Amino acid sequence: MPVVRVEMWTGRTHAQKQELARVITEAMVNIAHTTPEATIVIFEDIPKENWAQSGTLASDMET
Amino acid sequence: MPVVRVEMWTGRTHAQKQELARVITEAMVNIAHTTPEATIVIFEDIPKENWAQSGTLASDMET
Amino acid sequence: MPVVRVEMWTGRTHAQKQELARVITEAMVNIAHTTPEATIVIFEDIPKENWAQSGTLASDMET
Amino acid sequence: MPVVRVEMWTGRTHAQKQELARVITEAMVNIAHTTPEATIVIFEDIPKENWAQSGTLASDMET
Amino acid sequence: MPVVRVEMWTGRTHAQKQELARVITEAMVNIAHTTPEATIVIFEDIPKENWAQSGTLASDMET
Amino acid sequence: MPVVRVEMWTGRTHAQKQELARVITEAMVNIAHTTPEATIVIFEDIPKENWAQSGTLASDMET
Repeated sequence: MPVVRVEMWTGRTHAQKQELARVITEAMVNIAHTTPEATIVIFEDIPKENWAQSGTLASDMET
Repeated sequence: MPVVRVEMWTGRTHAQKQELARVITEAMVNIAHTTPEATIVIFEDIPKENWAQSGTLASDMET
Repeated sequence: MPVVRVEMWTGRTHAQKQELARVITEAMVNIAHTTPEATIVIFEDIPKENWAQSGTLASDMET
Repeated sequence: MPVVRVEMWTGRTHAQKQELARVITEAMVNIAHTTPEATIVIFEDIPKENWAQSGTLASDMET
Repeated sequence: MPVVRVEMWTGRTHAQKQELARVITEAMVNIAHTTPEATIVIFEDIPKENWAQSGTLASDMET
Repeated sequence: MPVVRVEMWTGRTHAQKQELARVITEAMVNIAHTTPEATIVIFEDIPKENWAQSGTLASDMET
């Protein structure tokens, strides 16, 4: 039953999403006592120019 | 007043979205007693590599 | 696979949600060619004091 | 602590997003008494063919 | 057309939400060139026990 | 920078949310290479009467 939505900056690889989906699902099953089949994980890739903190777009920050 | 958000895998056609928007709006009006003008439907196309169930990305499943 | 999220003002009855879930799921199956089991509908009841249009909270509008 | 999510049609410029992020963050700080660092603003660009009102996709409306 | 969703901790007053709705709508109109009528602002009050940063629920932090 | 949103049925305990927040944050740090401080986890408790699968509200299912 749980739906987990992960918003991150664009740039995570396929392998990272695979690993995140696996570990988050495992956490939901072990801790929240749901089943793997019932656990949906959705990734949303947010471009840096669509994400702001402290009033500044991430694409405008020097990192 | 209702906002309906539909998350589906990428691949639905324009015609399918037209039909879904029409039928969902109709349902909101008839059942929830709102007006068509007040009903917003937003589609989000989720690529299969951004969607996991049972801890596996949909793009890695054999379907 | 679709997740449908319906945000409406608080006050819809259990029967209205039953009917909406049924009709929206049917639409997803018939139009988007998914299965009923794969279709999740989530309702979020929004109090009128948490919803604004034209810059005014719905709880402050005369309707 | 606040997360503000802005869903608009595709087409807003980088400068518009900069200005929106700045003004919305300022509003959160001044009115909701949070800090700029704690305020996240996320923009989601919605293509007109993914947005419907009155049961009609925005891409099908004459505006 | 924009939908703005503001997630904040529970505790903001009615007056704060009024003011936020007003200022955010104004920003959308002035900067993103939409109309007030087309701008929807939704507040979601998140209890501190439902919000974590650095892996710790806000209700468990000393502030 | 990531925001993780977990929608589950009402009924998870404070201890379960603590543990989920800890493990999910750890996963984001280890796998997606972000920092704990930048990782926000938000839980949304969904009552069973607001959640449907196969067109039926969870509160109407025999489990």
